Amino acid sequence: MTETKRQMRLGAFLSGAGHHLAAWRYPGANVQGILDFQHYKYLAQLAERGKFDMIFFADILAVSENFDTAISRMAAIRPEPITLLSALSVVTEHIGLTGTLSSTFSEPYNVARQFAMLDHLSNGRAAWNVVTTSNQGAAGNFGESPHLDHHLRYERAKEYLDVVSKLWDSWEDDALILDKENGLFADKDKVHAANHHGTWFSVRGPLNMPRSPQGRPVVIQAGSSADGRDFAAQTAEVIFTAWQTLEEARAFYQDVKSRAVTYGRSEGDLLILPGVLPIIGETDDEALRKYEHFQSLIHPEAAITLLSGMIGHDLTSYDSNAPFPDLPDISNGVKGRLHLIQDIAKRDQLSILEVSRRIAGARGHWTIFGTPSSIADQLESWFVGGGCDGFNIMAPYFPGGLEEFVDLVLPELRKRGLFRNEYEGTTLRENLGLSRPANRYAKEVTPI
Amino acid sequence: MTETKRQMRLGAFLSGAGHHLAAWRYPGANVQGILDFQHYKYLAQLAERGKFDMIFFADILAVSENFDTAISRMAAIRPEPITLLSALSVVTEHIGLTGTLSSTFSEPYNVARQFAMLDHLSNGRAAWNVVTTSNQGAAGNFGESPHLDHHLRYERAKEYLDVVSKLWDSWEDDALILDKENGLFADKDKVHAANHHGTWFSVRGPLNMPRSPQGRPVVIQAGSSADGRDFAAQTAEVIFTAWQTLEEARAFYQDVKSRAVTYGRSEGDLLILPGVLPIIGETDDEALRKYEHFQSLIHPEAAITLLSGMIGHDLTSYDSNAPFPDLPDISNGVKGRLHLIQDIAKRDQLSILEVSRRIAGARGHWTIFGTPSSIADQLESWFVGGGCDGFNIMAPYFPGGLEEFVDLVLPELRKRGLFRNEYEGTTLRENLGLSRPANRYAKEVTPI
Repeated sequence: MTETKRQMRLGAFLSGAGHHLAAWRYPGANVQGILDFQHYKYLAQLAERGKFDMIFFADILAVSENFDTAISRMAAIRPEPITLLSALSVVTEHIGLTGTLSSTFSEPYNVARQFAMLDHLSNGRAAWNVVTTSNQGAAGNFGESPHLDHHLRYERAKEYLDVVSKLWDSWEDDALILDKENGLFADKDKVHAANHHGTWFSVRGPLNMPRSPQGRPVVIQAGSSADGRDFAAQTAEVIFTAWQTLEEARAFYQDVKSRAVTYGRSEGDLLILPGVLPIIGETDDEALRKYEHFQSLIHPEAAITLLSGMIGHDLTSYDSNAPFPDLPDISNGVKGRLHLIQDIAKRDQLSILEVSRRIAGARGHWTIFGTPSSIADQLESWFVGGGCDGFNIMAPYFPGGLEEFVDLVLPELRKRGLFRNEYEGTTLRENLGLSRPANRYAKEVTPI
Repeated sequence: MTETKRQMRLGAFLSGAGHHLAAWRYPGANVQGILDFQHYKYLAQLAERGKFDMIFFADILAVSENFDTAISRMAAIRPEPITLLSALSVVTEHIGLTGTLSSTFSEPYNVARQFAMLDHLSNGRAAWNVVTTSNQGAAGNFGESPHLDHHLRYERAKEYLDVVSKLWDSWEDDALILDKENGLFADKDKVHAANHHGTWFSVRGPLNMPRSPQGRPVVIQAGSSADGRDFAAQTAEVIFTAWQTLEEARAFYQDVKSRAVTYGRSEGDLLILPGVLPIIGETDDEALRKYEHFQSLIHPEAAITLLSGMIGHDLTSYDSNAPFPDLPDISNGVKGRLHLIQDIAKRDQLSILEVSRRIAGARGHWTIFGTPSSIADQLESWFVGGGCDGFNIMAPYFPGGLEEFVDLVLPELRKRGLFRNEYEGTTLRENLGLSRPANRYAKEVTPI
């Protein structure tokens, strides 16, 4: 083991009661904590004690299409990420703060500003998970009917990110003067309008805020479609993804890294972190029983409703015990997921309900169970096998599932030299090993 | 003095270096603190020690039109209110948290959610200052050219607020069940879609979040045009306003309260808080010298640029020593301000620069100076004279100006029984004496 051994990057993917669909019913899960700041404070500080790179919040801008089931049977509540992360910035010191925000249903000036402010509040720990929102229900909350086509959402997202990053750069790092005596507040030659006039956006700029500690908050993406991969290869610094096998993960890893190189970036400029849901036991058998306990808590309606939403096709009117049907490709945004699910159903000869339960648990993410050492083995196999640069850890329930990972699995990874003992830097970029972007407007960018 | 003596409601209007235009140049002002969380934490805790009802942040979605002067001579930086207030919710316990957000440049689902979340994070202390944004520069940052007409902005705002309040009500107060045993998360009959289809917005709902502690965050407005007054009389719970004399303040007070009654509300359902900039000295003479010191720090370019922005007419090409010109009414949204300024200029025979300096100091708000006892006298005269229900206190510089108000003026007001010794309730509504709104969907609303 050398000092320069490659180490995993780890995100702690937080949610209310937990990532398993039935987490909120699990005896140890804090279901009362879903909107309680104290619950998230505990989780964020726990993750920071574990030296995770970041905490991560997903987001959905709607209650599911199948309204009655979503309300009755699922934990349909979503804490708003920006407000929650801003509050958590006060009670943490080192850990990165990642929030999901849709480029389809927001304005770039507002979003640039809220993430820049989060970066200021946290002294350089903000990250934005850019999503284009495939959820049809969300469109209904933003006046758009029908929902913008998949390809157009990515076109819009690309321009959106371009605008946001111009705004983040609009003040050069040394633009502030603050000379009280002579009444000079800032150097007007170091503050730049964006003057962006594109297909989707027209934004003058500059931002009404100096450049943030990281230069730009870290940009994270999660798309795995062709459009999504291409977008991520050009602009993402971290990719959060979902694969069931090392082979798939490796193929994705190679594809996206080589696309990035095509775009003139280096492989180290973007990190790929698949989601993984670990169920930890003192023995493999206990872990398996725990998994079965979780699965037994999934309400059939909830499982089928969730799967219907994931593939964009309503399965609730089918006979749930019939074999999983052959479905046409419905929407490009969910095609990858549909194929994955059809493959599993065919391979294991599963009914609609069986597939739904299988997928529902971790929403298509890799689910592993075993002792802490076995969990570490499985993570290591993907990490050294070329499948990833680390993981986004999805504890099946909170707080217990994350406590077990921090106290039992992380020591195993540390023993193997696969994870840090202390934070290396002060900003999220420094901890992730990502460089601080040069300001596009600064004259010093290309010295002659 | 009886226990039921009517008491003032006080907001602490916070900003970076202070409310005087030249605050950032004032020796004691913390100009480095403009984006430093520790600065705002100190101010919020100071205001809470003073038992202010709320802290209040304005917002401007752009750097001023006159770019060079705005950057060089003015403190053009604006902390983003939602993120900052979310962070401040963690380090305060009692004080209300008011943020300004534009209904013209945002989406109701996002805004409903961020303020509801702030209300959850703070256990019932959130307030939204709804503005329609008269600033032309802001329009340039949101793709809109030309800027939406004044009247239409208010039409949009009215529908916007309607949508937001439907979303805030979408979960009845007792909708959550959280029955782990039987797998019942919430009562689907107590969660309601908004199904709003209006002129400006189409929003299905429900919000993905239970009703917040205050039922709905407190709604604040600041318009003083005819449209603005009418909107406020219908929907505002607090009005923040700007008047130079008690007569004007009283006329506004009577007008808006009687409009509210016309709309079926009671006078106590909305509170009117003019802004006031107090300059405090040990003697009247010292206060006057302090005022003159502040005024001497105003850069001529900054004063004329600010005034140009306020009245929507560029005065920077005029001879600054010429008398203030007769200008045509330019935009309905700033008509009131323009008339006010023309009256002052005519009455006191002021040049463009002189008017600019006079107005620039407090941006048209009432400026008072004197000893703590004299300041208290002046505030009392408006309060008992029917001009207001309290004030939004605009310290000329931070932190010193607010420290002086808390430590010297508030004891004077308390001695007179005009301000609280302790918070009366736990939520902002309770402290302001505003009722918690019934949920429009709850069956119990009209018992037979």
